[in-house]
Amino acid sequence: MVRQKRTAFYLSDRTAITAETLGHSLLSQFDGITWDRINIPFIDNVTKAQAVLKRINQASEQDGHRALVFSTLLKPEVLALIKQANCQVFDYFETFIPAIEEELRQPFARMAGRSHGVQHHLSYFRRINAINFVLAHDDGVNPKYLDEADIILVGVSRSGKTPTCLYLGLQYGIAAANYPLTPDDMDTLQVPATLIPVQDKLFGLTLTPEQLHLIRQERQPNSHYASRAQCENEIQWQEALFHRFNIPFLDTTGISIEEISTIILDRCALKRKLYGA
Amino acid sequence: MVRQKRTAFYLSDRTAITAETLGHSLLSQFDGITWDRINIPFIDNVTKAQAVLKRINQASEQDGHRALVFSTLLKPEVLALIKQANCQVFDYFETFIPAIEEELRQPFARMAGRSHGVQHHLSYFRRINAINFVLAHDDGVNPKYLDEADIILVGVSRSGKTPTCLYLGLQYGIAAANYPLTPDDMDTLQVPATLIPVQDKLFGLTLTPEQLHLIRQERQPNSHYASRAQCENEIQWQEALFHRFNIPFLDTTGISIEEISTIILDRCALKRKLYGA
Repeated sequence: MVRQKRTAFYLSDRTAITAETLGHSLLSQFDGITWDRINIPFIDNVTKAQAVLKRINQASEQDGHRALVFSTLLKPEVLALIKQANCQVFDYFETFIPAIEEELRQPFARMAGRSHGVQHHLSYFRRINAINFVLAHDDGVNPKYLDEADIILVGVSRSGKTPTCLYLGLQYGIAAANYPLTPDDMDTLQVPATLIPVQDKLFGLTLTPEQLHLIRQERQPNSHYASRAQCENEIQWQEALFHRFNIPFLDTTGISIEEISTIILDRCALKRKLYGA
Repeated sequence: MVRQKRTAFYLSDRTAITAETLGHSLLSQFDGITWDRINIPFIDNVTKAQAVLKRINQASEQDGHRALVFSTLLKPEVLALIKQANCQVFDYFETFIPAIEEELRQPFARMAGRSHGVQHHLSYFRRINAINFVLAHDDGVNPKYLDEADIILVGVSRSGKTPTCLYLGLQYGIAAANYPLTPDDMDTLQVPATLIPVQDKLFGLTLTPEQLHLIRQERQPNSHYASRAQCENEIQWQEALFHRFNIPFLDTTGISIEEISTIILDRCALKRKLYGA
């Protein structure tokens, strides 16, 4: 069977991040179609809209199916032009704003880029500070200041600590530190001494030995470090440690950084310091 | 005037990231309301939904206005329960899926977590590799391998290079390096020698001297480094450099990391290596 090929456009006056999130979430619910996805941000005048209209028509013609367009276009004249193209338009504001206006009994601001722009100085600084914190406390550096962390992720090498910390900082403003569990720690079933004073902030990341093996192979192919046996030993040891000291932990196999981060926020009842920044 | 206080709920079977992004984008279009925003992820059964229903009713009662609920709930029985609460529900799937089903002539998969889960091994590795690349090439370390970068951000200290690189890596899988322009470089109006072989990959980040001063004050209050005069000198020098060598650059004052990243992708025609991962 030949897969249907279609084009999806994500259009916006500003970044098109919201349009992309919406479209991606909807399209991921349909199988068997190969999508060509085209982001076009900053469509803030009619001249640009005309060029986009042409691109949409070309895509629809080439595909033999009309394109789907997901948009957060705020200028009525821009949206009106796009609707003349051979496509199906899902405009996010047009769909939902009227009902919200009615509920809140006020008109909407029709201001572009409110969602992903910098509205608040304070939240900008919080975000930058959180990222700086993550970088300064990556991989167990600066253990002196671990007590300033909101959370400390622990796990063996390549268990996903760093990307998760970065996501927690970037997206939620959480001061996330991480500390590696190393083969040197494996002589005993004890929490590394540095971590004892901050034990209530620990959260463990684990994964299947198979997955760890795959990830380490990518980094140091055919090393002792990447071997199935070594991965199995380390995972077995760290999970025993988590159980013994009641350290909450999560098996991250097959789940994304976004999901890992949300689960951690939820389980640890961490308060996010940024909202949709 | 007393600000109206209302509650917004972001509900989902999985992370609620889509519900949050979309709800935040809509609510940012309305001024003068203080929002209490509550994320509740992983509502995947009726028991959990009943507890959420109670929370919504409590919030609506306390506020004296019914809550707004933004959801990506896939289980019809869960969504039906939430709709019994005293609130206005905006469900993305319910709103948009039927028209897409009709257009694509197939039913949707009704699978939770497709948008922010890990669908593709390859894209997971790309993402992790991009983050590793960013960390390994932060602040001019490893200049030997700069030619492997998709893009190299340049700018004076605190111009936002690191957070932007991290966002480019995390969100789009772009191998983004960054290299600092320092006062030592300011003796001449020349590109630092290390960067000459990779000059076509450079992109400059600049900002107003006032904003740079504010950011540096936060870091080293009342230092020469943070002084207005020093900030002005450095900005003037770097912008002259960007002009002289035709290095594309962006004034990032007052725009967010998301916007900066999107503008860079757009201007440099960089191909993203991840999609809505």
